Amino acid sequence: MTQTKPETRVDRRRFLSLAGLAGAGAAAGVRPAAAEATPDPDIVNIPEWTQALGAGVNNHPYGIPSPFEKDVVRREVTWLTASSESSVSFTPLYALDGIITPNGLCFVRHHGGEAEIDPARHRFMIHGMVDKPLVFTMEDIKRMPGRTNRVYFLECAANSGMEWRGAQLNGCQYTHGMIHNVVYTGVPLRAFLEAAGVKPQGKWVLAEGADASAMTRSIPLEKAMDDCLVAWAMNGEALRPEQGYPLRLVVPGWEGNMWIKWLRRIEVGDQPWGQREETSKYTDLLADGRSRRFTFIMDAKSVVTSPSPQAPLRAKGPNVVSGIAWSGRGTITRVDVTLDGGRNWTTARIEGPALPRAMTRFYLDVDWNGEEMLLQSRAMDDTGYVQPTKAELRAVRGENSIYHNNGIQTWLVRSNGEAENVEVS
Amino acid sequence: MTQTKPETRVDRRRFLSLAGLAGAGAAAGVRPAAAEATPDPDIVNIPEWTQALGAGVNNHPYGIPSPFEKDVVRREVTWLTASSESSVSFTPLYALDGIITPNGLCFVRHHGGEAEIDPARHRFMIHGMVDKPLVFTMEDIKRMPGRTNRVYFLECAANSGMEWRGAQLNGCQYTHGMIHNVVYTGVPLRAFLEAAGVKPQGKWVLAEGADASAMTRSIPLEKAMDDCLVAWAMNGEALRPEQGYPLRLVVPGWEGNMWIKWLRRIEVGDQPWGQREETSKYTDLLADGRSRRFTFIMDAKSVVTSPSPQAPLRAKGPNVVSGIAWSGRGTITRVDVTLDGGRNWTTARIEGPALPRAMTRFYLDVDWNGEEMLLQSRAMDDTGYVQPTKAELRAVRGENSIYHNNGIQTWLVRSNGEAENVEVS
Repeated sequence: MTQTKPETRVDRRRFLSLAGLAGAGAAAGVRPAAAEATPDPDIVNIPEWTQALGAGVNNHPYGIPSPFEKDVVRREVTWLTASSESSVSFTPLYALDGIITPNGLCFVRHHGGEAEIDPARHRFMIHGMVDKPLVFTMEDIKRMPGRTNRVYFLECAANSGMEWRGAQLNGCQYTHGMIHNVVYTGVPLRAFLEAAGVKPQGKWVLAEGADASAMTRSIPLEKAMDDCLVAWAMNGEALRPEQGYPLRLVVPGWEGNMWIKWLRRIEVGDQPWGQREETSKYTDLLADGRSRRFTFIMDAKSVVTSPSPQAPLRAKGPNVVSGIAWSGRGTITRVDVTLDGGRNWTTARIEGPALPRAMTRFYLDVDWNGEEMLLQSRAMDDTGYVQPTKAELRAVRGENSIYHNNGIQTWLVRSNGEAENVEVS
Repeated sequence: MTQTKPETRVDRRRFLSLAGLAGAGAAAGVRPAAAEATPDPDIVNIPEWTQALGAGVNNHPYGIPSPFEKDVVRREVTWLTASSESSVSFTPLYALDGIITPNGLCFVRHHGGEAEIDPARHRFMIHGMVDKPLVFTMEDIKRMPGRTNRVYFLECAANSGMEWRGAQLNGCQYTHGMIHNVVYTGVPLRAFLEAAGVKPQGKWVLAEGADASAMTRSIPLEKAMDDCLVAWAMNGEALRPEQGYPLRLVVPGWEGNMWIKWLRRIEVGDQPWGQREETSKYTDLLADGRSRRFTFIMDAKSVVTSPSPQAPLRAKGPNVVSGIAWSGRGTITRVDVTLDGGRNWTTARIEGPALPRAMTRFYLDVDWNGEEMLLQSRAMDDTGYVQPTKAELRAVRGENSIYHNNGIQTWLVRSNGEAENVEVS
């Protein structure tokens, strides 16, 4: 299902002639694609689905997608990881639109496989440097005051990680698909910590999952008391098993591995623990051999999801460039799109709610004359941060990293509409 | 799965003693439910799901809910309708939270069964009183400029219809479950009408579906040009088959039957058509034998979803009263909750985005002492409209109606936590 390819670098100078197109294509009022009514047989003839009763209303008590959408699924890149229990599957961003990721398509990352938990037996404990350790059942948690609903993106720190060393994976499902965006229902972690009473020396918390990896991460108390949630529902229904059913920690804007799934305890301590998953992984090795650590926040980033290698253009004329942007520091305020590898930029339309630390959808309507394009998007957030180029990132961070690659992505769109993952130089 | 019951009327005077509880229960800072840590065996012992690897990341390429959630499904009330092809299934509101309805749980209403359409063969036509009739393929539609994303509730005109004649169906899934709320992706209908060019005499449009009922409704041109969408995606993915795949009309704030599924044509005319589904149904018969027609807008309404007959209270002490509110005229600005059948009201917290013509979530934290409660909620919108009592509705509309019942709902919560559909007098 996936393709690997040698690094492709494209000279931006080839695309000088596209400057005019970029300006014209972004203009308002591009004409719609349509045929005059006569004589399209598919509108004149009565199709078979109008001629006979269809399935009844409870054909599927829990509904499923159309069989014509069977290719819109999460996919693995099997050579990336050693086992499927410690691996990742990717969100099919190229086929999705809007801002909500359907629960069945949210990417999955396991460190020890998917725990299947009986909610009646699950417990959540607050302990460590607290006045009074507490244990909660799921029923107890749902009876807590202060329940809330919040829309947040969750991005794996390793999203786009293969791209540090050049264009490698041919599709935004693989280059950027370790992200999803849902509505969480839960109670602020602060309420639990206050109920237990954090002792004055408490400065960090350790969150642990009930899965086979007993996934653990250290989180500063300041963040834990700020906007973290103890959540049991996503997009209106119970968490899915692969997303931590029955309970997960929500750590808005911070790297996904801290959002502990199958959450079973929060321990309060006076310093970070230095557990396996925060030393062997999730630190950023620099060119000089030193490592950045505690790089928790996912900086502003964006990607064009269509057209892209899995979503080619089908025709010349009117087309929609669609993509997503997000920032762990705040709200996306602007996304610019270039059709010529960065020579000319046009501000895209943000369409739909633009919420803090949430995925935001942008569109640019273009009129494509069939010339090759070098498509890029560049996100800005309300702190003034601007998404960097890959070259700018590498100048500061070297090429050893796996994590925190938020560089600008380039798709080469060929005259036949096919798109390819490239880098511009 | 459903229960029918004789009408229950409860005297509000029985609940005088609850006035004090309502005040106390709504106060901030109710204590959390939890046990001190030692010696709960379920937190001390290591469960089996921590002791062995779980399933791999692509166990389900399109994910499904936990087996422990198998009862959270759409349900029919089989005696309500003659056949499942012209019937309804209900959203399990009692088990949901937040503001988004998962696609698999959105209620279904068919007039001729579920059309299963090949999107490559589907066509959408604009014709009638236009300068130039146009036919669009799905690819054409997705290439239109002006794509947008909007969150809207869709409520069937008949939602709560059985309640005109008294409390009948014992659960909010059945009394209020003909509603869902999702993010739609589509293009304004206005763009298609403008591309075809509406002639000056055009004042109405007829929308028709490609299902076996060829479902048709007349819509004023003013609404068609205002905020209607031609949509192909819900909650980020393609429409589900039962929701009109590959194309449906979105008519924000207006009764659900106008949101034509499997949309195949929009005809422009100079007057409403008077089709079967707008004369035999969806008009409101008054006590004097006259009918209200063109009652398109769904007025402000709300319901407590938990506790409710399918979601009893499990324990005394801290509890969360949770519910939803919506208005076809605008944005929900306030929801009040009473625990004593309307004698004392407390303003609930609105939690999560409150968007125009979208479902809005409210909560009231209470400390329940085990006394019987008569729970109600009352929604207000930004036009100043206040949700009426059933008695107020009946005084104006009589009891002949099926449609447009937005009266205040009452749940009697007994001392054992069980809840029941009742009316107060």
